[in-house]
Amino acid sequence: MATRPVPASRAAYATFRPVPTRWMDGDVYGHVNNVVHYAMFDTAVNGWLMDRGLLDPRTSAGIGLVVETGCRYTGEIVFPDRVDVGVKVTHIGRSSVRYDLGLFRNDDDRTSAEGFFVHVYVDARTRRPVPLSQEMRDTLDTLRAPD
Amino acid sequence: MATRPVPASRAAYATFRPVPTRWMDGDVYGHVNNVVHYAMFDTAVNGWLMDRGLLDPRTSAGIGLVVETGCRYTGEIVFPDRVDVGVKVTHIGRSSVRYDLGLFRNDDDRTSAEGFFVHVYVDARTRRPVPLSQEMRDTLDTLRAPD
Amino acid sequence: MATRPVPASRAAYATFRPVPTRWMDGDVYGHVNNVVHYAMFDTAVNGWLMDRGLLDPRTSAGIGLVVETGCRYTGEIVFPDRVDVGVKVTHIGRSSVRYDLGLFRNDDDRTSAEGFFVHVYVDARTRRPVPLSQEMRDTLDTLRAPD
Amino acid sequence: MATRPVPASRAAYATFRPVPTRWMDGDVYGHVNNVVHYAMFDTAVNGWLMDRGLLDPRTSAGIGLVVETGCRYTGEIVFPDRVDVGVKVTHIGRSSVRYDLGLFRNDDDRTSAEGFFVHVYVDARTRRPVPLSQEMRDTLDTLRAPD
Repeated sequence: MATRPVPASRAAYATFRPVPTRWMDGDVYGHVNNVVHYAMFDTAVNGWLMDRGLLDPRTSAGIGLVVETGCRYTGEIVFPDRVDVGVKVTHIGRSSVRYDLGLFRNDDDRTSAEGFFVHVYVDARTRRPVPLSQEMRDTLDTLRAPD
Repeated sequence: MATRPVPASRAAYATFRPVPTRWMDGDVYGHVNNVVHYAMFDTAVNGWLMDRGLLDPRTSAGIGLVVETGCRYTGEIVFPDRVDVGVKVTHIGRSSVRYDLGLFRNDDDRTSAEGFFVHVYVDARTRRPVPLSQEMRDTLDTLRAPD
Repeated sequence: MATRPVPASRAAYATFRPVPTRWMDGDVYGHVNNVVHYAMFDTAVNGWLMDRGLLDPRTSAGIGLVVETGCRYTGEIVFPDRVDVGVKVTHIGRSSVRYDLGLFRNDDDRTSAEGFFVHVYVDARTRRPVPLSQEMRDTLDTLRAPD
Repeated sequence: MATRPVPASRAAYATFRPVPTRWMDGDVYGHVNNVVHYAMFDTAVNGWLMDRGLLDPRTSAGIGLVVETGCRYTGEIVFPDRVDVGVKVTHIGRSSVRYDLGLFRNDDDRTSAEGFFVHVYVDARTRRPVPLSQEMRDTLDTLRAPD
């Protein structure tokens, strides 16, 4: 394995969403299974969009389909840890948005995992890409990484 | 605990659906978590309905909402077990259907868990109960317990 | 369907644990899938036990295996709802404990679902039932239903 | 978005594991949620290791911890699709193994998603990296990509 980058601190993220662990997140090894980290990413991104009125999955004309995700795991998370999911936007394209995410256990200031998540916006019916609205772009801009 | 009933055999069920375990189904105790059993029930019932053309969740005017479920656990299931979900219909009401289900590990002839699952059919838009169609009733009748 | 009992209020439960919904809890019908309710029950019971030092799943000599669960669903839960899981103990046997649970959406005072959950304590190694300790019984007694 | 690579065919993978979809894998958009793809990867890799006697999660002295995963999504998967998970080994290090994976819907010969999965072997107790055994390396070599 190559040398690992230093885990990011909370200061690197623009907003946070608490996603407590669940008992069944744990696997045979007694820690939160690697799959669950993506459920936390998904929840933080879509939760933020819904809280800001940018997404209503039952009615929105445009919906964000996930086209790529990834995660590097640097520490264990264990039930009943609370996880704060740090979120920032690192790229806004014509129809796409890339989020970078970090998972913080309890009061840790260093990530236990870091990942990314790319949405492409499509028409809910035809599933063809649609451009992001200006309102969407402006709101996403508020999630840029802090300086 | 009271005396336990004898686990049912495969002969008690009308049809079966294989639902292999997944790695993440396992919990800290090294066995399939109690929640997963319900995901197997859900998959067997809805899968059977879809295979027979009785349900298309994206387009059906009537959809089955779950109003009650239950499960008794009598043995462990462990990844990578294959599970065969036994299904039978035990009650057909005006708008509702009750299924009894049994989970069989690999080639076992006795259940590791037994449960039930009650659907009430509602209008997909208004979520008000609707009567079962005659076609639905007739097809559900084929899932009655074998004699 | 028979007449439904009135959903319980928060006053009927002894303690609460917040379990926020996750994006992937939603199913094709746009609401939290019936299986997820059990993940919330499981989390509330085991989380309470761990918070009180009654369970460490990696080291405890006695562990609680789930022998029976059930749930009645009376209302929809939708992401990003927060759910408060109400918990009370309704039976303490020689080796077993029964919990009754209620799921409250956001600030609702009436349940959207009610269920139960029965643990039997077993030796972690042999998986044979073991009696509950007096400390365990005393602490569980604090979860009896409020008068 | 940059030009997309052509989805891989089955011929690019060394072995396959069927992982049928489950009802609850579907999300609000009516397709299998992006998180579930990782549960399929996890199941295929660990299932293969267990089938070959290379892993017993309850007893093995060395266990594979996941240090990095990723996935690109190119097509929808919908319940009740069967998914065949194609697996190949693309790197074997001193303590680590990288698997590339592809998800094939039903009888499709082109992937609906492609990903990777990196295990680092550690001592189950200390969680410090341990070298792969020669038996392990030899067996993993049989999962190299077909020519």
